[in-house]
Amino acid sequence: MNKRLILKLMGRLLLMEAVLMLPSLLVSLIYGQGDSMAFVYAMLITAAVGVGPAFFVKPAREDLNPKDGIAVAGLSWIVLSFFGALPAWISGAIPSLTDAYFETVSGFTTTGASILTNIEALPRGILFWRSFTHWIGGMGVLVLTVALLPRLSGRTSQLTKAESPGPTFSKLLPRTSDTAKMLYLLYFLLSFILFILLICAGMNVYDALIHTFSTAGTGGFSNYNASVAAFNSPAIEWILAVFMLLFGVNFTVYFHLIRRELKLAVKNEELWVYVSIAVLFAFGITFSILPRYEGFFPALRAAFFQATSIMSTTGFVSQDFDLWPTIAKTFLILLMIIGASAGSTGGGFKVSRVIMLVKSGFRDIKQTIYPRKVSVVRMDGKAVPEGVLTRLGGFLFLYVALELGGALLISLEGVPIADSFVAALTCLSNVGPGLGTVGPTQNFAWLSDFSKWVCSFLMLAGRLEIMPILCLFSIGLWRKKG
Amino acid sequence: MNKRLILKLMGRLLLMEAVLMLPSLLVSLIYGQGDSMAFVYAMLITAAVGVGPAFFVKPAREDLNPKDGIAVAGLSWIVLSFFGALPAWISGAIPSLTDAYFETVSGFTTTGASILTNIEALPRGILFWRSFTHWIGGMGVLVLTVALLPRLSGRTSQLTKAESPGPTFSKLLPRTSDTAKMLYLLYFLLSFILFILLICAGMNVYDALIHTFSTAGTGGFSNYNASVAAFNSPAIEWILAVFMLLFGVNFTVYFHLIRRELKLAVKNEELWVYVSIAVLFAFGITFSILPRYEGFFPALRAAFFQATSIMSTTGFVSQDFDLWPTIAKTFLILLMIIGASAGSTGGGFKVSRVIMLVKSGFRDIKQTIYPRKVSVVRMDGKAVPEGVLTRLGGFLFLYVALELGGALLISLEGVPIADSFVAALTCLSNVGPGLGTVGPTQNFAWLSDFSKWVCSFLMLAGRLEIMPILCLFSIGLWRKKG
Repeated sequence: MNKRLILKLMGRLLLMEAVLMLPSLLVSLIYGQGDSMAFVYAMLITAAVGVGPAFFVKPAREDLNPKDGIAVAGLSWIVLSFFGALPAWISGAIPSLTDAYFETVSGFTTTGASILTNIEALPRGILFWRSFTHWIGGMGVLVLTVALLPRLSGRTSQLTKAESPGPTFSKLLPRTSDTAKMLYLLYFLLSFILFILLICAGMNVYDALIHTFSTAGTGGFSNYNASVAAFNSPAIEWILAVFMLLFGVNFTVYFHLIRRELKLAVKNEELWVYVSIAVLFAFGITFSILPRYEGFFPALRAAFFQATSIMSTTGFVSQDFDLWPTIAKTFLILLMIIGASAGSTGGGFKVSRVIMLVKSGFRDIKQTIYPRKVSVVRMDGKAVPEGVLTRLGGFLFLYVALELGGALLISLEGVPIADSFVAALTCLSNVGPGLGTVGPTQNFAWLSDFSKWVCSFLMLAGRLEIMPILCLFSIGLWRKKG
Repeated sequence: MNKRLILKLMGRLLLMEAVLMLPSLLVSLIYGQGDSMAFVYAMLITAAVGVGPAFFVKPAREDLNPKDGIAVAGLSWIVLSFFGALPAWISGAIPSLTDAYFETVSGFTTTGASILTNIEALPRGILFWRSFTHWIGGMGVLVLTVALLPRLSGRTSQLTKAESPGPTFSKLLPRTSDTAKMLYLLYFLLSFILFILLICAGMNVYDALIHTFSTAGTGGFSNYNASVAAFNSPAIEWILAVFMLLFGVNFTVYFHLIRRELKLAVKNEELWVYVSIAVLFAFGITFSILPRYEGFFPALRAAFFQATSIMSTTGFVSQDFDLWPTIAKTFLILLMIIGASAGSTGGGFKVSRVIMLVKSGFRDIKQTIYPRKVSVVRMDGKAVPEGVLTRLGGFLFLYVALELGGALLISLEGVPIADSFVAALTCLSNVGPGLGTVGPTQNFAWLSDFSKWVCSFLMLAGRLEIMPILCLFSIGLWRKKG
C-alpha cells in the first residue's frame, strides 16, 4: 500500500476543500450574519492540515494500485465530511459535532437527511455551504464512478461495469482527464440551465442557487423548513421535478447527445426503464391520491414531483406524503430502493442493476425449463459476463444486509417499526426523508448520537456503493504488502 | 412434456389425498359434531376426480424430464390445496371458497396463517384435518427437497445444491425410495417423541396430536384462539420451543446421527449457525423485553419460544409479541427472513443461503483488495461452484422482488405500511403470524379476497422456493417439445 501517496492525495483534497469554502465565505460576508469568521477559521484549519501532506510528503512511487484506489475512495469522503463540518460547528449553528458531521455527510453523499429543526434560523453562509456540499458531492460521484474507477484495475472495473453497464470509460474519451472535464462541463451546463429556469419561475438568486446545487447533486437540502412546498409554485415544482429526473439519468447519455451520437444515447436501456418506472409509478401514485386533491393535475403534479424526487434520490418535499394512502407510500419505498441510474449523481440500488437482475431471473426460469440450453444475459445489446452477475448478487446481499442491520440498530430508538426500516433505507439510498418520525415534515434531530453515526455510515456506504467503505474495515487493506 | 404422465401422477396424488382424509373422518366420527359427511363427500369427490387419470391414462413413456418434474412440483401443491379445502367448505365451517383455499394452502405449505376469527367454534374433525395438512406438507417438502429433486437433472440439482449444500442425495442412500423411507421414519420418530412429551406435560390426546402435527410440519395451526398461550404451561412452551428448533434442522443431520456418523453430523456448518442465531437472537430479545416480565427466566422462555417459533417458521404464539419493543420485533423480522435450515420442514430464505452469501461477501472484499488472488467459497469444507453462487444471487433477487411486489399489492388494503410488508414476508417465509393488523392476536380474515389470493400465491412460492411456481407461468413449460 502506497501510504505516502494516499496521505499526499488527502492533503491535496483538503486544500481543494478549503478553496471550495470560498464561495460560502463570500455569501456569508454579503449577508453579514456573523458566520464569516467560522468560514475563515474552517478554511485555515483545513488548509493547515492539508498543506503538510500535500507539499512535503514525497511518495516513493507515483502510482496507485487497486488497494490504494479503494482506500482513497473510502477515506476521502470521510475526511472531506469531517472538515466540511467545521463551519457549522465553529459558528455554533450546529453545536454538536455529531450533528454537524451527520449534516455534512448527508451533504457530501447527496442524501439530504437533516438534523436541523429550524433550517431558516441558520445564517445564509452556512446554508449555502450546506447545499454546496451536495453540488461537490454530485460532481465527485460522477467523476468517481464514470471516469476514474474503471481505470483502477480489472477487478475494480468489474465492480464499476456492474454499476455503469453502458459504455465504459474507454469508450468515452481516451484520457481520463478529458472525460472528467467533459462530465464537469455537462454538469455545469445542466446546473446553469436549471438556475436560469428557477430565476424565471420567480426564485431569488440565493434560493435559486441553493435549489440548483441540491437538485444537481440529487441531494435535497432546501433553505426552507417546508422544503419546496414553501414556494407554493406549480412552475417551480414542475421545473425541479423534470430536472431531478434529468440528474438521475446516466451522464453518458448526455455525453453522447452532446457529441450528436443520438443512436448511442437512445440505445441506453437503463434510460428507458428509468423513465418508464418514474412515469408509471407517478401515475400509480396519482390515482391513489386523487380523492385528496382538487382534480387530476394537482394530484399528478404532487405525484410526479414526489416520484422523481424519491427515485432520483433527491428528497425534496412538495407534499406531506406521510399522509398519503399506504399504496402511495409503498410506491415511494419501492422507488427509494430502485434509485436512479448508474453514472448519475443519484443513489439507490440503481436501475441498471435491477434490469440485469430481472433479466437474470428470466434466464434462470428458462434454464430451469431447458437445462441444456445455454443463454446469456444481454445489456445494451452486449453479453454481460457471468462474473458480473455473481458480483451483482453479492452486491444485492450487502445492500439487504446493511439495510436490515441498520434498521436493527436504529430500532433501538423504539420508533414504530416501519420508521426504523425506512430510516435505514433512506440513508443507504441517499434519499433523505423517510416516513413517520423521520418523514417529510420531520427530521433526524431527535435520534440518539449512536443512531446518527449509524445513519452517517449508511449514507457513506450507499454513496460509495458499499465495497470501498467495507474494505476500510479489512486488515488486508492496511497491510504493506500487495 | 409428458402430459399424460403428469396427469397420471396428479390422479395418484388425489387418491392418496382421499386416503389421507381418513384419520380426520375418524376423528369427526368420534366427536360427532356434524362434519363427518363433509369428509365423506370430500373423499368421494377427490377420489372420483383422481381415479380416472390414475388408472386409465396410459403415458407413452414412464420417465419425467426436468420440465415435467417442475410442473409436477408446482401443480401438485396447488391441486392438493384445492381438494384439501373441500371438507371445510362443504361442512360450512369456512363458507367462502377463497377462505377455505387460503387456509388449506396455509396448511400444506406449513405456513399457519389463518382466516379464522374463532378457531374454537370449528368442529374437531375439521381442525384435525387443518393441522394434519401441516404434517403432510412437512413430509412432502422433506422428501421433495432432500430426496427427490436432486435426481431430476443437472440444473435442478444445482438448484437443490444451493439449498441443501450438505451431503446431497447420492451420499445418503443409493436409492431414492430408501432415502424417502428413512426420512419418513425420522419424521415419524421425532413426531412420536414430541407427542409423548406433550402428553406427559399435561395435554390431552387430541391437543397433543394437533400440536405435534403443527410443530413437526413447522406450520403453526393451533386449535385454540390464543395458540400455545392457551395452555399457560411453561413445560409445554419449553417442549414445543425445543422441538420447533429441532424440526428446523437439516434432516440429513439426523440421518447421520441415526447411522452413528457423528462426525458427518457435526460437520454440518448450517446446524451450528442455525442454532447460534436462534440462541443469540433469543438472548437479544430477552434483554429487550426484560422490564416487561417478572424476572429473567419468564422473559427468556417467552423470547426463546417466540424466536424458535419464528425462525423455524412455525408461527406458534405464546406471547403477544406485537406489544414488545421495536428492537424485539426487528429481531423477529430478521428471523422471519433468515428462516430455518435447508432440508428441514421449515421455510424462509434458509440459513445455508445466508452463510454462503456472507462468505461470498467476504470473498468479494478480499478480491477487491487483492484482485489477482483467486479464492473460492467453501461450505462444509467443500468448494461451492461459482454457478451456484450466481443462482443464489438470483434467488435472493426473486425473494426480494416477491416480497416487495406482494407488499405493494397488499398495501392496497390501506393498512399501516409495516403491516403489508410483514404480511407479505410472513406468507413468503411460511411463518404465519405477522405484526399489527396481521399480528399474533389477529388473523388474515379481514383481508380482501384479492389479498388472500396474493398471500396464497406467496405461500406456495415460498414453500416451493419460488422457481417451480414461476415456471408454471412460462409458456415454455407447456410446450410439447423438449
